[in-house]
Amino acid sequence: MIDVCLLGCGGMVPLPDRSLTALLYKYNGKMILIDCGEGTQVSIRRMGWGFKAIEAICITHYHGDHIAGLPGLLMTMGNSGRTEPVTILGPPPLADVVRALTIIAPELPFQVILKELPVEAAACWKIGEIMINSTPGEHLIPSLAYNLQINRAGKFLVENAIAYEIPVKYWSKLQRGETIVHQDKKYIPEMVLGEPREGIKITYITDTRQTDSLIPFAKDSDLLICEGMYGDDSLIGKARERGHMVFSDAAKLARESNSKELWLTHYSPSLGHPEDFLETAAKIFSNTKCGEDRMWRHISYHSEKELS
Amino acid sequence: MIDVCLLGCGGMVPLPDRSLTALLYKYNGKMILIDCGEGTQVSIRRMGWGFKAIEAICITHYHGDHIAGLPGLLMTMGNSGRTEPVTILGPPPLADVVRALTIIAPELPFQVILKELPVEAAACWKIGEIMINSTPGEHLIPSLAYNLQINRAGKFLVENAIAYEIPVKYWSKLQRGETIVHQDKKYIPEMVLGEPREGIKITYITDTRQTDSLIPFAKDSDLLICEGMYGDDSLIGKARERGHMVFSDAAKLARESNSKELWLTHYSPSLGHPEDFLETAAKIFSNTKCGEDRMWRHISYHSEKELS
Repeated sequence: MIDVCLLGCGGMVPLPDRSLTALLYKYNGKMILIDCGEGTQVSIRRMGWGFKAIEAICITHYHGDHIAGLPGLLMTMGNSGRTEPVTILGPPPLADVVRALTIIAPELPFQVILKELPVEAAACWKIGEIMINSTPGEHLIPSLAYNLQINRAGKFLVENAIAYEIPVKYWSKLQRGETIVHQDKKYIPEMVLGEPREGIKITYITDTRQTDSLIPFAKDSDLLICEGMYGDDSLIGKARERGHMVFSDAAKLARESNSKELWLTHYSPSLGHPEDFLETAAKIFSNTKCGEDRMWRHISYHSEKELS
Repeated sequence: MIDVCLLGCGGMVPLPDRSLTALLYKYNGKMILIDCGEGTQVSIRRMGWGFKAIEAICITHYHGDHIAGLPGLLMTMGNSGRTEPVTILGPPPLADVVRALTIIAPELPFQVILKELPVEAAACWKIGEIMINSTPGEHLIPSLAYNLQINRAGKFLVENAIAYEIPVKYWSKLQRGETIVHQDKKYIPEMVLGEPREGIKITYITDTRQTDSLIPFAKDSDLLICEGMYGDDSLIGKARERGHMVFSDAAKLARESNSKELWLTHYSPSLGHPEDFLETAAKIFSNTKCGEDRMWRHISYHSEKELS
């Protein structure tokens, strides 16, 4: 149903063999990007998913390693033939930052829609069926964590449709969530749909220290992608002071939020071999993986879920 | 004496296996960078020459592929421990562009000195012994070509120093170009220095169509690095319309300017195999090479010149 790609796993500076942390999400032909550091467009190109279908770009915060690639990406999207509007979401001052950076990308063949998200409270925005949720992090400057959710309606209950004597021609409309009025009778989706089924939730958290509010935000994620600036627990003080986490912070968040899988990312350039510290996290949350550039997964609805 | 590295050979967009065109120049422990597209800092890192010694950054023009990497590079230079001022040179509106882009690099540990260069006339700026010369190009927006020159004083003529009865303790000062007054006598460098010897000149021309004024500008270059957006002469109309050159334009410029060597660069992403068209240029100017990412050369003064 959904393809998720961690475009890079680095933090602070792009390295020859480690791209900056960003997420590319694909569902039903639409793509959403979270973060866009220097070189993110090169990583997207390596993946081969194209640029034209990027509907929205969510930015966590305005440190260069999460935003410096924006003007170049927008130009490349323009060159790819995109003419439909592109939505950019981020904390304040979104308009100032986008206006400043696009001084070098003055003529784009599509409209840029800006959606500034609050840094004091959670927020939600919808791109087609994809719910983009944000919540404040705690970093050196205002930052946001994101999750992307696809909700799934309940199963269609044929027996109910028959019992209510609903004409067959309306069944698919009701299944899609429409309300029908027919010969003075009103049929609503709830009459024929079972309990909502589990959807798919991907959570992306970076450039924030661990906070209690992140636990409900990440609750029941199919995949939690979370920063681990350092692997070694002895650096926990340094990490927190700079608004970051160590691997064990991320693992605790995965466990406490009941997430199904954790990918670590946003490694410090000083962390040459993240896998040396994987065990530190895996002891706390066993289904932890060290993120790598362009690591990706296909995630299906619960009943069909499988690793790709 | 001088190390010159072509950090990338691509134009328009950074590609997985082709960095954007930029030049890194190293002389006596000082470095000068020309152009800074997205990913230039990664290519510098691959070269291993460090970031701290970059004294000046020259920008040809403000299309994203030549400037988008600037804020990231400045931050990385800050992280490298640089505290000495950095000079940025470029056409107008330099201050507006740098101010806008550094919205995401607000706190740098060094001063940024801006030197706006004219787009109507040639100009010159000096960084230590390095002369940075600029001249206008003809592109879709104002652009500049650059050359970097090290001049070399004449040989010290011991016989003259003896004939003028100059005390030996002043010889080295005169050789360095200083004027000496001693017991009411004035000694000037010209008394003891022979004819100025040939220095080293590196010319970098991109994002301009071929113009007559570029010939004297590139005159007698030891190395001419020049754009060749397309290899095929049949695309000459398209190239000129967009303010670019084909390989044969660059080769003619190399020949007419009496340059010693030509490196082609700034290939269109559509030009997958530049070497397929090398012969087109080499027929006009035999010492032509197709630029590649991080191709570099050590260039010595004329009497000592050799390929590294």
